[in-house]
Amino acid sequence: MRALVFDGELRVGDAVPVPVPGDAEAMIRVRMAGICGTDLEIVRGYKGFNGILGHEFVGEVVAAPTQTLKGRRVAGEINVGCGACERCRAGARTHCGRRAVLGILNRAGAFAELVTLPAENLHVLPDTVEDRRAVFVEPLAAAFEMLEQVEVHPGVSVAVLGDGRLGNLCAQVMKLAGAAVTVIGHHDRKLALLRRLNITTAMPQESRAAPYDVVVEATGSSSGLDAALSRVRPRGTLILKSTYAGAAPVDLSPAVVNEVTIVGSRCGPFERAITALACRDVDVEPMIDAVYPLELGLEAMKHAASPGAMKVLLRMEP
Amino acid sequence: MRALVFDGELRVGDAVPVPVPGDAEAMIRVRMAGICGTDLEIVRGYKGFNGILGHEFVGEVVAAPTQTLKGRRVAGEINVGCGACERCRAGARTHCGRRAVLGILNRAGAFAELVTLPAENLHVLPDTVEDRRAVFVEPLAAAFEMLEQVEVHPGVSVAVLGDGRLGNLCAQVMKLAGAAVTVIGHHDRKLALLRRLNITTAMPQESRAAPYDVVVEATGSSSGLDAALSRVRPRGTLILKSTYAGAAPVDLSPAVVNEVTIVGSRCGPFERAITALACRDVDVEPMIDAVYPLELGLEAMKHAASPGAMKVLLRMEP
Repeated sequence: MRALVFDGELRVGDAVPVPVPGDAEAMIRVRMAGICGTDLEIVRGYKGFNGILGHEFVGEVVAAPTQTLKGRRVAGEINVGCGACERCRAGARTHCGRRAVLGILNRAGAFAELVTLPAENLHVLPDTVEDRRAVFVEPLAAAFEMLEQVEVHPGVSVAVLGDGRLGNLCAQVMKLAGAAVTVIGHHDRKLALLRRLNITTAMPQESRAAPYDVVVEATGSSSGLDAALSRVRPRGTLILKSTYAGAAPVDLSPAVVNEVTIVGSRCGPFERAITALACRDVDVEPMIDAVYPLELGLEAMKHAASPGAMKVLLRMEP
Repeated sequence: MRALVFDGELRVGDAVPVPVPGDAEAMIRVRMAGICGTDLEIVRGYKGFNGILGHEFVGEVVAAPTQTLKGRRVAGEINVGCGACERCRAGARTHCGRRAVLGILNRAGAFAELVTLPAENLHVLPDTVEDRRAVFVEPLAAAFEMLEQVEVHPGVSVAVLGDGRLGNLCAQVMKLAGAAVTVIGHHDRKLALLRRLNITTAMPQESRAAPYDVVVEATGSSSGLDAALSRVRPRGTLILKSTYAGAAPVDLSPAVVNEVTIVGSRCGPFERAITALACRDVDVEPMIDAVYPLELGLEAMKHAASPGAMKVLLRMEP
């Protein structure tokens, strides 16, 4: 099959082996997939992953252990736990020590014609969530994870650092929770997308120094943490959403002196994301910059990595 | 008066001006004071402080706005808030944006014959807590702050990284809360002090990789954070107690991937510390390496900075 592969270099392969579904796994024909910051970081060396990239997708189930899934349009959770360890049995398979992660860790990803996942990872999508928006289920679920971890009361002041894909979704989720949100970013075009949603925006130099109750670090850059620490109030909360390759010099003494709580946040609740998209409580359509066919995967990745880019999608059918 | 001063270089001055108490402030004749890691960091440039060092002390009130304090033996909270801002009015003067901090920020410290503090900062000590142990009230209160911030249930597994002054107190506080504590450190003599309190100890190379529910970073070293992140379980808690001068390269992506909560922790509840000392629930006496008279302050600081040292005290009366 055709797939976008990274094995030290990035290439579109035409004869990539079709993955073999394991017990209790389904085979899904991918319809559309989204390029995420993590995909770009993997190409820069993050996690040392080699194989088919991609973990944000929508597809149609072509084979499944249960009849109810066959032919359905689904999004898929990306963590595949061992199923046997203490964490898996406690329902925390996203933190299984032996997990594989779709297109990130020991498991072929979704930038391909076909992908496999355990049936229990799949979430059937309502028809009202079209393919273009359905690829946002995974990253939007990750944004909703913040609300599982941190109590956000209406009126809480929240700064989101970063106006990209992740920052945009985090800002919309925080607004949905009733927070007074300001997004701080560098790109006027990206900030304009947020202003159209009635979200306050600021350039870094113009944002007030006055501290926020909650700061979300979604810059995807190693310098984001220092900026975030300087904007959170004493005893406030800093949510880390970015991952990137490599270590950066950080002075954490402000976190100690100001008794800041820093919360690492990763994958989140799919059903909450699907509902928000179905109810149009979150607006993702304006974020889509382009849709490329899979055979132009290299151009698509290049586009996604360009400074001004928001979301770039891959379409699997020619 | 005589005082230990840092003004770019460290020196014992014999004619240092006596501080003038402000409104609602008391004058205290210092009896004994303790040298803390923060004092050593200030001499290395932390906070850019210049003036009389010292913030852990016990003394006798010689003048006070209220008669009840006069002649009493006290320990003193080190943060002096403005009293007028929102945070001060909410009782969080330790986080006042305009605060002074005894011997650390804009306020003459306690390595001196006399020191001033607002009367509301003073806590009267029971006679059963002798001077030698009373100097531990401030750092022990900082250790108890962890229990104000993080719920520690009996049986929770806690690793304390660092076998020094701070690590020792943190370990004792965690044990008091019912945690299963392991202290990981490099110094056999310091670890032996903990084993005598029935606290499990390990050298870094021999400590199991299996992750802890809670990890306390009390190494006072910039490399401690990476070590701490590698030892905390997914969705576990990392408490930062160390402050040090300068930034260090840190890879925080494990905190995101494992959804770790990192809690900065600073000053804490004095009354809780006083009770624990009065009840002998915490044992500090074995930590005392030496008591120097104030005029030998330079030797005392040198001793405190030596790798094997635990607590070094200063005695103010000749």
